[in-house]
Amino acid sequence: MVEPAQTLDGWYSLHDLRAMDWAAWKMLTSDERQAALHEFQGLMEKWNNVQKAEQGSHVVYKVIGQKADIMFMFLRPTMAELNDIETEFNKTKLAEFLIPTYSYVSVVELGSYMAKEGEDPYENPHIRSRLYPILPQTDYICFYPMDKRRQGDDNWYRLEMDERSKLMYSHGMIGRQYAGKVKQIITGSVGFDDYEWGVTLFADDVLQFKKLIYEMRFDEVSSRYGEFGSFFVGHRLTEEGISPFFHV
Amino acid sequence: MVEPAQTLDGWYSLHDLRAMDWAAWKMLTSDERQAALHEFQGLMEKWNNVQKAEQGSHVVYKVIGQKADIMFMFLRPTMAELNDIETEFNKTKLAEFLIPTYSYVSVVELGSYMAKEGEDPYENPHIRSRLYPILPQTDYICFYPMDKRRQGDDNWYRLEMDERSKLMYSHGMIGRQYAGKVKQIITGSVGFDDYEWGVTLFADDVLQFKKLIYEMRFDEVSSRYGEFGSFFVGHRLTEEGISPFFHV
Amino acid sequence: MVEPAQTLDGWYSLHDLRAMDWAAWKMLTSDERQAALHEFQGLMEKWNNVQKAEQGSHVVYKVIGQKADIMFMFLRPTMAELNDIETEFNKTKLAEFLIPTYSYVSVVELGSYMAKEGEDPYENPHIRSRLYPILPQTDYICFYPMDKRRQGDDNWYRLEMDERSKLMYSHGMIGRQYAGKVKQIITGSVGFDDYEWGVTLFADDVLQFKKLIYEMRFDEVSSRYGEFGSFFVGHRLTEEGISPFFHV
Amino acid sequence: MVEPAQTLDGWYSLHDLRAMDWAAWKMLTSDERQAALHEFQGLMEKWNNVQKAEQGSHVVYKVIGQKADIMFMFLRPTMAELNDIETEFNKTKLAEFLIPTYSYVSVVELGSYMAKEGEDPYENPHIRSRLYPILPQTDYICFYPMDKRRQGDDNWYRLEMDERSKLMYSHGMIGRQYAGKVKQIITGSVGFDDYEWGVTLFADDVLQFKKLIYEMRFDEVSSRYGEFGSFFVGHRLTEEGISPFFHV
Amino acid sequence: MVEPAQTLDGWYSLHDLRAMDWAAWKMLTSDERQAALHEFQGLMEKWNNVQKAEQGSHVVYKVIGQKADIMFMFLRPTMAELNDIETEFNKTKLAEFLIPTYSYVSVVELGSYMAKEGEDPYENPHIRSRLYPILPQTDYICFYPMDKRRQGDDNWYRLEMDERSKLMYSHGMIGRQYAGKVKQIITGSVGFDDYEWGVTLFADDVLQFKKLIYEMRFDEVSSRYGEFGSFFVGHRLTEEGISPFFHV
Repeated sequence: MVEPAQTLDGWYSLHDLRAMDWAAWKMLTSDERQAALHEFQGLMEKWNNVQKAEQGSHVVYKVIGQKADIMFMFLRPTMAELNDIETEFNKTKLAEFLIPTYSYVSVVELGSYMAKEGEDPYENPHIRSRLYPILPQTDYICFYPMDKRRQGDDNWYRLEMDERSKLMYSHGMIGRQYAGKVKQIITGSVGFDDYEWGVTLFADDVLQFKKLIYEMRFDEVSSRYGEFGSFFVGHRLTEEGISPFFHV
Repeated sequence: MVEPAQTLDGWYSLHDLRAMDWAAWKMLTSDERQAALHEFQGLMEKWNNVQKAEQGSHVVYKVIGQKADIMFMFLRPTMAELNDIETEFNKTKLAEFLIPTYSYVSVVELGSYMAKEGEDPYENPHIRSRLYPILPQTDYICFYPMDKRRQGDDNWYRLEMDERSKLMYSHGMIGRQYAGKVKQIITGSVGFDDYEWGVTLFADDVLQFKKLIYEMRFDEVSSRYGEFGSFFVGHRLTEEGISPFFHV
Repeated sequence: MVEPAQTLDGWYSLHDLRAMDWAAWKMLTSDERQAALHEFQGLMEKWNNVQKAEQGSHVVYKVIGQKADIMFMFLRPTMAELNDIETEFNKTKLAEFLIPTYSYVSVVELGSYMAKEGEDPYENPHIRSRLYPILPQTDYICFYPMDKRRQGDDNWYRLEMDERSKLMYSHGMIGRQYAGKVKQIITGSVGFDDYEWGVTLFADDVLQFKKLIYEMRFDEVSSRYGEFGSFFVGHRLTEEGISPFFHV
Repeated sequence: MVEPAQTLDGWYSLHDLRAMDWAAWKMLTSDERQAALHEFQGLMEKWNNVQKAEQGSHVVYKVIGQKADIMFMFLRPTMAELNDIETEFNKTKLAEFLIPTYSYVSVVELGSYMAKEGEDPYENPHIRSRLYPILPQTDYICFYPMDKRRQGDDNWYRLEMDERSKLMYSHGMIGRQYAGKVKQIITGSVGFDDYEWGVTLFADDVLQFKKLIYEMRFDEVSSRYGEFGSFFVGHRLTEEGISPFFHV
Repeated sequence: MVEPAQTLDGWYSLHDLRAMDWAAWKMLTSDERQAALHEFQGLMEKWNNVQKAEQGSHVVYKVIGQKADIMFMFLRPTMAELNDIETEFNKTKLAEFLIPTYSYVSVVELGSYMAKEGEDPYENPHIRSRLYPILPQTDYICFYPMDKRRQGDDNWYRLEMDERSKLMYSHGMIGRQYAGKVKQIITGSVGFDDYEWGVTLFADDVLQFKKLIYEMRFDEVSSRYGEFGSFFVGHRLTEEGISPFFHV
């Protein structure tokens, strides 16, 4: 048997995408809409407080195209808390108008490919900040799930660990060229959702997502072994932007 | 022809996943909701009595992400009883608000790979307890259906039985490392549903699902021969949790 | 060109699967429901009369799992009659509550692999009874559509007829071991529906479906050349069972 | 580069399939239904006049199984006219009850494989009658879209033109055996819809569809290079049949 | 690692396809419909002004077949503006009747395969006119998304850049034969949507789409390396055509 690599796992993650039912929303009275937004902003404040206490993090983006209107991403110490967040949100008035379109369940993950020998990585402050990250507030977000291919001669899981480490190292080198332009959070979803990983990218310049992913596609890790799900791209919904966004 | 292995088959199994229509649920009066929950708890009691009589077993979990809100898993001595359970549940008031999203029909199965020679396995108490199990009440559940691959050179069903036994033995060795952490129930669904097997995992530490499945993915049984369907992960809905969960 | 085999073709076949909309059904008055069932039983009687006259056959089963609640299977001498049956049923009151979920259009088919030389098979009473069968009233039914694979080196349609006959003969030998336990009706659907064949199995012991299909999967016809669609399993809805089934 | 073949292109084609919403249709008054049918028959008359003027053609069939209830096939000199037909129909009362389920956009096409050298094929009356055909009024219709495979060693588009011509010639020979039994119209849809071709077959004996397509499946063009979409089979809806079909 | 090519990127692009809910639209009063169209024409005028100021471009087409009724294509300097356009449109009255069916998010892209050495391409007026194009007002449009294949021996991303350049050059030569007949806009969508590129073609003669794409299919870039999504074909909706199109 080929030796798997141990991963480091941090906060659990939920991507939750929703389409707005504007026609039904417009049928509410202005007061009802205000009350719904007020209730939603109460939830937001609760989530903000969790983030201030470094017990989790979240972001909200407006999705471009018809796949969704809003994408939430939540990080929490336990899967149960993610479940509670979605149940609590689903019971709100606003949720009656935000129809589920896609979600992704995973956990922040660092491959051991980059771990130093002899170190307890969970004690390393740099690693801790990556396992339990406060999500950045960039202008744009990009999310997609992916698998490593297991097909004929292109079977990632039959490679020796050395070979995988070497390939991942060179793959990571491409990402490093985008340091300062694109922040990347990898979440593992084996056993949690339909792909093996989720990739969430943050940037102020949306074009950097395309440049980074396109460049990586020529790298052997992607060209031979990458299988990609749907891509979602979003523009930040700031707290000040909530009221105008939902205004009809 | 390659010799198939005989399997041992126990209770029939139904996984039944549902999404909650909160908007419609909120339109009921509080009394109507109480009556619906009361009716549902009557069903639960009936199911509990079946379990106490060791005539079946069941669990209820809250699903994380949008694939569903609730997952039921039922075990019964006959397929007809599973059919009756779903019909009876579908006629309840609560079922009007629990929209079907996925189901899986199968039967608890033990591969004969692990059967000892000369033994009538159906008389072995250890095997009986695995064929007719009372489902564990762990904090988390993981369910996914799977196939053995039949593709070009990677065709499980063209391997000799010896080879399959050897591969399954080494595959099982990984699972044993998780003894005490993850309980696994394999159900066979050839002829019953769209994949060949269902895998249901129970654990108090949800991360163990990912560790176990990820480690197995490097094993030849998975890397060359595994084809996986959707993954569902749930957090236990205790009987005390029912009332708060449905409270709006 | 590889020589195809001529098939023998009998009655046309329609599998028609429906999900019950219990919430809407409950909104009818008891009298309205009785009237709807009365109208449906009138249709059933009409179908029974056709069967008594040996001008067709039909069965009704309750489907296990969420794929459907009810499966009808109709056999008739012409495709037009099948079309008339579904149109007539669709206009009934009950059909407003039985939402279509899947259907399959095909024709009872015997491969000439088993035809004896020099015989006019349509005059053979044994073959006639298989081409124009009265469907059995077993406790359980199993239905699935399938293709023969045409992929790279595993291309059924590029095999010589001798090779195909030999493979089908050995495949059929497995089926014969289940004589008395499982009755099998093969329907051809090339040009009629999305797969090439439908397989309908009848048994009183539902487990025999799994045993038969699992054993066949190791046979070369299935392991190299079988591609399977969805599997549906049902429990018989007797005429006496109709009233309790629809009672709410 | 491999040389493509020039095709001859005739009238544009729209297959339009619809499912009848009988429950809603029954909620109209008898007068409203009559008015809706009267409006529809006005459209039919308009289409009939186009056909009489040889400016197009159309047929209407009742589809067997749940994929649709009605299939229209329209031929017109321009794509814009097809667009106008569907828009005009969509605005009618009857269209409120005929829910779109599938459509196919293409153009009547003759492969140049059969064109004689030195001839202007658009002046050849035989070819003209095939490019601008009045559709036959057979009892049954069969429609399916298809691709030529581009996969590994089975890549139609990498064959030399000579090889393709030879293969298509032998493929066409099968079709000719069905002359008088099955009329075939090939429409090209590269750039217009999701497959590369549509195949529409007309016959009074529905079984001939199965015989023809099954026999072709053993021919190399289909066995190695054919990829098929969904199959739709219909029974003719005559003008006299409209009133009884829609009667509830 | 294989060297990727740098691309030139211009305006961001949104294809937005919608199906008209005629039944609901007819339930409005004539005045309500007029008001909805008036509001929509206000948006159109706003978009026209953006185009006059060369700050973007847009077109509106009627889609043939059931995939959609209307296709919008918008080009804007930022992704945020595309997001604002769809949000603003979604809040209009007319949008309540134009149900989303498909969308595509991308950015106008020129492969560097055609860039001259030593030149700053963003200063080249010819290139600028292609990166920031005013969309043509042809009678017909064709849109489809596509990938370059990464499968076994047919893996575009494992070819050397020289080989890719050579192949793309010969591929482009086919397109040039259609100069004056078909205008082509390539948009890149790696990281933005589910395929890697969108192809939008404009022509007055709709048949040219088929001829061009069919001819290209025999070219190695398509035959070995092209994977295609859905194809959409539309007929121009002129501003004068809006009122009759929506008239019921």
